[in-house]
Amino acid sequence: MRSDSRPHVVIIGGGFGGLDAARSLADQPLSVTLVDRHNYHLFQPLLYQVATASLSPGDIASPIRWILRRQSNVKVLLADAQSVDPQARRITLGPGPVDDYEAPEHRTPSQTVDYDYLVVATGAAHAYFGHPEWAGRAPGLKTLDDALEIRRRVLLAFEAAEREPDAIEQRRLLTFVIVGGGPTGVELAGALAEIARRTLRQDFRAIKPESARVVLIEGGPHLLAAFPESLRAAARASLIAIGVEVLTGSVVTAVDDRGVSWQSSVPSDRVTGGAAPSVTPGRIDAQTVLWAAGVAASPLARSLGVPLDRVGRVAAEPTLQVPGRPEIFVVGDICAFEQDGAVLPGVAQVAKQQGAHAARNIIAATRGQPLRRFRYRDYGNMATVGRGAAVADIGGVRASGVTAWFIWLFIHIFWLIGFRNRVAVLSEWAWAYVTFQRRVRLITGPPPGPSDRQPPHP
Amino acid sequence: MRSDSRPHVVIIGGGFGGLDAARSLADQPLSVTLVDRHNYHLFQPLLYQVATASLSPGDIASPIRWILRRQSNVKVLLADAQSVDPQARRITLGPGPVDDYEAPEHRTPSQTVDYDYLVVATGAAHAYFGHPEWAGRAPGLKTLDDALEIRRRVLLAFEAAEREPDAIEQRRLLTFVIVGGGPTGVELAGALAEIARRTLRQDFRAIKPESARVVLIEGGPHLLAAFPESLRAAARASLIAIGVEVLTGSVVTAVDDRGVSWQSSVPSDRVTGGAAPSVTPGRIDAQTVLWAAGVAASPLARSLGVPLDRVGRVAAEPTLQVPGRPEIFVVGDICAFEQDGAVLPGVAQVAKQQGAHAARNIIAATRGQPLRRFRYRDYGNMATVGRGAAVADIGGVRASGVTAWFIWLFIHIFWLIGFRNRVAVLSEWAWAYVTFQRRVRLITGPPPGPSDRQPPHP
Repeated sequence: MRSDSRPHVVIIGGGFGGLDAARSLADQPLSVTLVDRHNYHLFQPLLYQVATASLSPGDIASPIRWILRRQSNVKVLLADAQSVDPQARRITLGPGPVDDYEAPEHRTPSQTVDYDYLVVATGAAHAYFGHPEWAGRAPGLKTLDDALEIRRRVLLAFEAAEREPDAIEQRRLLTFVIVGGGPTGVELAGALAEIARRTLRQDFRAIKPESARVVLIEGGPHLLAAFPESLRAAARASLIAIGVEVLTGSVVTAVDDRGVSWQSSVPSDRVTGGAAPSVTPGRIDAQTVLWAAGVAASPLARSLGVPLDRVGRVAAEPTLQVPGRPEIFVVGDICAFEQDGAVLPGVAQVAKQQGAHAARNIIAATRGQPLRRFRYRDYGNMATVGRGAAVADIGGVRASGVTAWFIWLFIHIFWLIGFRNRVAVLSEWAWAYVTFQRRVRLITGPPPGPSDRQPPHP
Repeated sequence: MRSDSRPHVVIIGGGFGGLDAARSLADQPLSVTLVDRHNYHLFQPLLYQVATASLSPGDIASPIRWILRRQSNVKVLLADAQSVDPQARRITLGPGPVDDYEAPEHRTPSQTVDYDYLVVATGAAHAYFGHPEWAGRAPGLKTLDDALEIRRRVLLAFEAAEREPDAIEQRRLLTFVIVGGGPTGVELAGALAEIARRTLRQDFRAIKPESARVVLIEGGPHLLAAFPESLRAAARASLIAIGVEVLTGSVVTAVDDRGVSWQSSVPSDRVTGGAAPSVTPGRIDAQTVLWAAGVAASPLARSLGVPLDRVGRVAAEPTLQVPGRPEIFVVGDICAFEQDGAVLPGVAQVAKQQGAHAARNIIAATRGQPLRRFRYRDYGNMATVGRGAAVADIGGVRASGVTAWFIWLFIHIFWLIGFRNRVAVLSEWAWAYVTFQRRVRLITGPPPGPSDRQPPHP
């Protein structure tokens, strides 16, 4: 799959890291191939808004080949990169795009792509504390399909409650547990509480949606551990004000068909709040459990043949190169990069800066110039807690409430890929803010087959 | 599941017929239950725009319970009505909304709903000329999930072609066959030709999307048989101008993993057009086959215990009652209603007018007043043929080209359910018209499991 003599850069992954790497190679005398198993780049910071029916998938995702259409030195392949052979400088692609529709004898033979330089930007998935069997009961939120599945489960739980004659079972159907108190968990919990208390208020006859329980469980002592203490407290107060029960210092010990079990890890700091303060210690009966905890790097890292850290990431050189493989770079969530004594967090800004830096180092390498060390510039941290409330810590300036929410809105709108999406998302938000409505409350997709109850690829 | 003493009207189906029946019962001393197996009302005339990546599902669908939220005498149930027991005046509901996620021992026991009056508005599905096994290879377009599956297949075919080294196979991957020359088939063919020739033009490196073949096959002698001859000719000319090969008088005899076979039914009127006039008679190798032909009424009609016509519809009384069952009404595609010597077509306007009429007759019955005969008022017929081209026949006024397209646009925008969607759809269209872009080119959803290769419910 080579057709010219320019150095060939293969980028695996079209997320923030891979896409910025590809863009930074524009107009260079290089041939670039970007491989992703989805045809779209996803604006992951807003994914929870698809899961909670505020935005459509098309609002936060754009086809990768459309984004890169004018960059003539890039070819985009829809493929699952299954392994890297660092010796042969070659990657192996998974099944062809239409193989699911083909009889076995017509499926695509295995394809490979050779590279001169490789950028691995395949990201990370959720980890289930060593219990991959929980994945089927407690979906995580990493892909558009995850978001649509969560939206489906949340809406179906209300529908089932409306049909349920038994009061105890109805209560279980209207209980939503979110595991993990980072930004994703906080944002999901806030949005679910709003759906129950505002959006669905008039829609049902047999149930009162506003009586739904939303419980956020965090194993550590604090929500939003990456934020300063004042903002953590503001976020927790906002959540409790909109009716979320917050349970910190509590580790989930089991997820089963009927709910979750947990036990205290830091009992002194547990806080219970919201309309229904009677959280039974140890057990919550719930139909819907959402997972926003733990992290496991993409399994592709294993084929690189270098040591990996506890969550499967590659400990990169200061130049983002893989130790002993100067032609391979790792960026984003798959890269464990130590700076000032700590590993950088798995956030979009780190991935973007690393993607661009890896591209610059590849250009330098092709010119025989020295490679430069990466250094992350932290512009800040933000999270939303429902309608008109957020926390932001930007360059040392801390804000919460409506101010932070407008900062969040402004930054996210202007950061979205593609002008069209910005207009669509802004109009959605303006409408939702005024009316409390969530327009995209659609239950779509097939029911889960037996395979969906299995854990995802290890 | 009864809680008051007012007469209980059950409506099965939240499409145009069922929804207008429910709305027409507002403010009446009746208790109304609307049952649908989806949580949304779908604006079916624009469904092909979701299938062809112009609109998001949320643009053309709204939750039924949201539409009816202020009508306090209506309760909405998400359920699959599996059968009617006319003797007992009772319907049986299928599995509970979350049963797919439940262990067998926790699934909902079978539920029933008693009625005093019943409106059956369950619509129709596509029929495969007695070959239900073709359904897996040639999806039809009736639901949002159908539309997302078609979008997925069309986009995946281009992706597979980009990775395909063999030129003959690449050609097969870039061949799209649409079976059925009614409005849905014409609209799908026009939109697919535009995607290939305009939308994707810059996106690929190994293939030229504009070389894709789009073939529209119709068994009868004409496209758009319900339209006057001048408009049929205009539609055919528009299709050929944007590169669609039109094959009328040709009946599909086989759909298999590699394409479709067909034979002439009306050889004298066959027309071949477009950029590649060499249609091989008898066989077209194609990866993607879409079905827009045939019709089969919802199987629920069988449980009514009355004779059905050839496609499974109930021959209704002039009052829309089921013969011998004065408390059961049929409306929309499940109702075979003869007027002026012909059965009314399965279009939205017929369903809407019948739904409202059935409601008025139910109100009359509860008051002991005589029931009135239904009469359809035909306001006209429209179909689009790609960007800025349409045909319209409204009250005897015939238009084609851009004029008809603006009429089509205006009517569809103002007919859409919910103000919010109108604004969103209009802005999508304006943007798409100016840029030729289709924003929602996302491949989502799980790959088809073994069950998806089976025919849908018979």
